Amino acid sequence: MTIATVNLVIEEEARQHQNNLTKPRGSLGRLEDIACWFASRQGHLLPETLRPHITVFAGDHGVCAEGISAFPSIVTGEMVQNFVHGGAAINVLAKQCSAQLSVVDVGTLSDLSGLKGIAHKKVKSGTANLLHKAAMSETECAEAINVGKEEARMAIAAGANLLIAGDMGIGNTTASACIICRLTGSPAENVVGFGTGIDETGYQLKVSVVKAALQRISDKPDEDTLQEVGGLEIAAMAGFYLQAAESGVPVLVDGFIASAAALSARMIEPSVTEWMLASHVSEENGHALALHALGLSALIDFNMRLGEGSGAALVVPLLQSAIALHREMATFTSAGVTDKDG
Amino acid sequence: MTIATVNLVIEEEARQHQNNLTKPRGSLGRLEDIACWFASRQGHLLPETLRPHITVFAGDHGVCAEGISAFPSIVTGEMVQNFVHGGAAINVLAKQCSAQLSVVDVGTLSDLSGLKGIAHKKVKSGTANLLHKAAMSETECAEAINVGKEEARMAIAAGANLLIAGDMGIGNTTASACIICRLTGSPAENVVGFGTGIDETGYQLKVSVVKAALQRISDKPDEDTLQEVGGLEIAAMAGFYLQAAESGVPVLVDGFIASAAALSARMIEPSVTEWMLASHVSEENGHALALHALGLSALIDFNMRLGEGSGAALVVPLLQSAIALHREMATFTSAGVTDKDG
Repeated sequence: MTIATVNLVIEEEARQHQNNLTKPRGSLGRLEDIACWFASRQGHLLPETLRPHITVFAGDHGVCAEGISAFPSIVTGEMVQNFVHGGAAINVLAKQCSAQLSVVDVGTLSDLSGLKGIAHKKVKSGTANLLHKAAMSETECAEAINVGKEEARMAIAAGANLLIAGDMGIGNTTASACIICRLTGSPAENVVGFGTGIDETGYQLKVSVVKAALQRISDKPDEDTLQEVGGLEIAAMAGFYLQAAESGVPVLVDGFIASAAALSARMIEPSVTEWMLASHVSEENGHALALHALGLSALIDFNMRLGEGSGAALVVPLLQSAIALHREMATFTSAGVTDKDG
Repeated sequence: MTIATVNLVIEEEARQHQNNLTKPRGSLGRLEDIACWFASRQGHLLPETLRPHITVFAGDHGVCAEGISAFPSIVTGEMVQNFVHGGAAINVLAKQCSAQLSVVDVGTLSDLSGLKGIAHKKVKSGTANLLHKAAMSETECAEAINVGKEEARMAIAAGANLLIAGDMGIGNTTASACIICRLTGSPAENVVGFGTGIDETGYQLKVSVVKAALQRISDKPDEDTLQEVGGLEIAAMAGFYLQAAESGVPVLVDGFIASAAALSARMIEPSVTEWMLASHVSEENGHALALHALGLSALIDFNMRLGEGSGAALVVPLLQSAIALHREMATFTSAGVTDKDG
């Protein structure tokens, strides 16, 4: 696997173009950076309008047996049905930003085989309990990664030029916390959060489960982290990111789970992060820390903690505006406006 | 003038509605607050989609004689022509968020009388130099405020349910800094910024001009601040906000200049801020401080410092998404999803 090269010459040309537009230099702040970022990734001085594709990967977690989540595992499958019927947050947000939306069962406990409108790519019915053993075998983990790669290829083939991975999986903040702790070297207390809404007792339990899992894998190499304490949907998301970067298509990273997947993808290919933008910083503890480790800077902080790709979908219009400004604004010369030095 | 009453009963009902939607309670963070805010302002449990109207007020500033700006005053009129021809940032952003856009000459130095596509409501060709005397007479200030009120009434009559005021006026960060210093009791050093891009020498000059102006008006009452050190476009923006609040239509406050106008409006009617949402926090020094004084919390921080209403227009899609989620998501019952306590 080879990560695509970023065109830094175009990035510099795009910066020059920004300086000619009818505004004080730099006055559009991050919007200027975003436009130049897309110019260099698309390889066009004037980047195209974004055609986003959101793929939500669903999987269940054996660690739910420990009582670390406020909701039961059955909700993962129920929410997949909600996605199909259009009632979830991500359905609304995908429509708002004109994104295509795909839903993939990569590992739910529920039997969804009769459900139309999703991709049936179940590697396994939920992971093993990461507290006691490896969540996935090496083969299962590789298969889940491949599901993500396949989905990214399909989205790109269908015309997408911005990929968003979403997650659905009761228990997955616990798995993600383990990944983030291990791959950033942070203590559980700084990373574990309240997930879907556990109480203080549940929180203490969750911290102890994460600590014990980290202890269990302490003599394994970092490369085994995803397989040992990850989730099927998290592995698929990592594969999705890797394929996007290989194909030279930008990804917009969502929240806590997505950042655990991004760290896992970076473990496999360090330069995958060159194709990533961060969308929001989640209310979940440790997300800011994961983004920092990835070298990414979130665009907004809305105290969200929903997953599904919701934070990423929400900010797509900000990216579209950055590109539209870059493409459509007049220059000082074309508009006959006196420049600062004029 | 009477500010419209906010419906707190509907706000509470909207909060209950949010708790029934298929997501962990509170997991949409600020999006939930925004939806409930609009519910209470519109008086509907399910608020309508926003129909934004942006009115850009243009005026020049006598204080430019002091050399406090990186651009000459002629740029104000040139940019108004750029607005008419569709080449400015606000044109692009208005289109992106499907907003109506109006441009009003309330006090430029340029002769724009032959220009079609703008409202000609010039109160005066630029303010007097606030360093030496009152920028506007009492009558001129009142007239400019009335221009803003009239524009708000027109936008509302045309169907707008969200109002954004934008500014164009070389020199207006100096006027705004004076207003913000005086009405928040902050020292010039904490409020003055680099505007359109002055250098360090220019910055020191600007600080000294603001200090001297504040000294000049130190024995005047707070109520005279707008007239003494404001701008015609700032007064019009204040009037625009006041009319919106009287008519019960929310406003989305843009950056540094807009916040100076908001503080000026609050001086006239303290409860006007109940109808205000802050959009972004500008890179301009002292904007965060002005927002804090207004009791408003910005949605994004993109290091923008352009004015024109650009930061407000940029975030409109975030508000639309908040409302769409509130209106369109399924409830736990309707989707057959197990709730936390289920």
